[in-house]
Amino acid sequence: MSGRQDIEDLIDMMARLPGLGPRSARRAVLHLIQKRGRLMAPLAQAMQNVADSARECVRCGNIGTADLCDICADERRATGEICVVEDVSDLWAMERSGVFRGRYHVLGGTLSALDAVGPEELRIPALVQRVGDEQIGEVVLALGATVDGQTTAHYIADELSGRCKVTSLAQGVPVGGELDYLDDGTIAAALTARKSL
Amino acid sequence: MSGRQDIEDLIDMMARLPGLGPRSARRAVLHLIQKRGRLMAPLAQAMQNVADSARECVRCGNIGTADLCDICADERRATGEICVVEDVSDLWAMERSGVFRGRYHVLGGTLSALDAVGPEELRIPALVQRVGDEQIGEVVLALGATVDGQTTAHYIADELSGRCKVTSLAQGVPVGGELDYLDDGTIAAALTARKSL
Repeated sequence: MSGRQDIEDLIDMMARLPGLGPRSARRAVLHLIQKRGRLMAPLAQAMQNVADSARECVRCGNIGTADLCDICADERRATGEICVVEDVSDLWAMERSGVFRGRYHVLGGTLSALDAVGPEELRIPALVQRVGDEQIGEVVLALGATVDGQTTAHYIADELSGRCKVTSLAQGVPVGGELDYLDDGTIAAALTARKSL
Repeated sequence: MSGRQDIEDLIDMMARLPGLGPRSARRAVLHLIQKRGRLMAPLAQAMQNVADSARECVRCGNIGTADLCDICADERRATGEICVVEDVSDLWAMERSGVFRGRYHVLGGTLSALDAVGPEELRIPALVQRVGDEQIGEVVLALGATVDGQTTAHYIADELSGRCKVTSLAQGVPVGGELDYLDDGTIAAALTARKSL
């Protein structure tokens, strides 16, 4: 009996992952059990390894397995430039694009009056500190184009004014995007930021 | 560096689960890492437990943690009735409905000429054996309403003819179903199997 309960517990835990529900968790667990030697035991081991070793970088907030993350520890990354992102997932998205060669600073969210998130909760003081300590020349704000994201961007720009150059990602038509399917705000932003060819 | 690789490996393994892709696997792993104490370590442990203990019931093919599964070991289940299902997921679905009180037999698939799946691959001989050994009075075929499922049902009915009663799940309008959205085959089957009120 207890054995069946183990399986139910595992399904319940999997169902709490984002993107999975009870039905897909059941399907995933069944698939794992049917391949328990080749897939389930290695997955459990890999998960345990990451649970034991993963931690936040003390400098930028990225996830790694040492006090300094791979990017902060990498000598080849451009010093003098910091890209500010909301979350680690945004940092990973920036890295996949492969264009930015500086280092990062993960805020851990956006300022939000509704949720009572102030600058102290967001590692913004740590950012100001880094700009001084690391002789940063440019801070690139890669925050979401939401109200909270833009509020946060303006707050950070104010805090850093006079200390370094502050830029933000361009807004406009996504690559591959068709005008017909874009919202009015994006089209307006793209038109305002038009450039000569 | 190796640490970042651990995280990538975990994402790759999660992405191979049914219902998850690279994007949702990344999201799930990030969520797990951010809750690594409360969620990730217990999940890894639960997965390891199940990987160590899960096995197929020697009698019916259901998944449990002992040689006999919970259902086969449960004295209160009606003896004399066997419900035949394709897969363990179908068995779980039958159990959720809570109506069937007998025991099960998991075939492990359907007969398929294309995939060269014959009766020997499907635990059909074991079913015939059980019908004799356990003095089974009725075998309920709960197989999918697909061509392969129905072929398998007919084959099993032939094998068991003269040994016990063989029935199959009714076909008809699903509970809550609207006629307008049903396919022609289902409506035809429901009409053919109409009953007087």
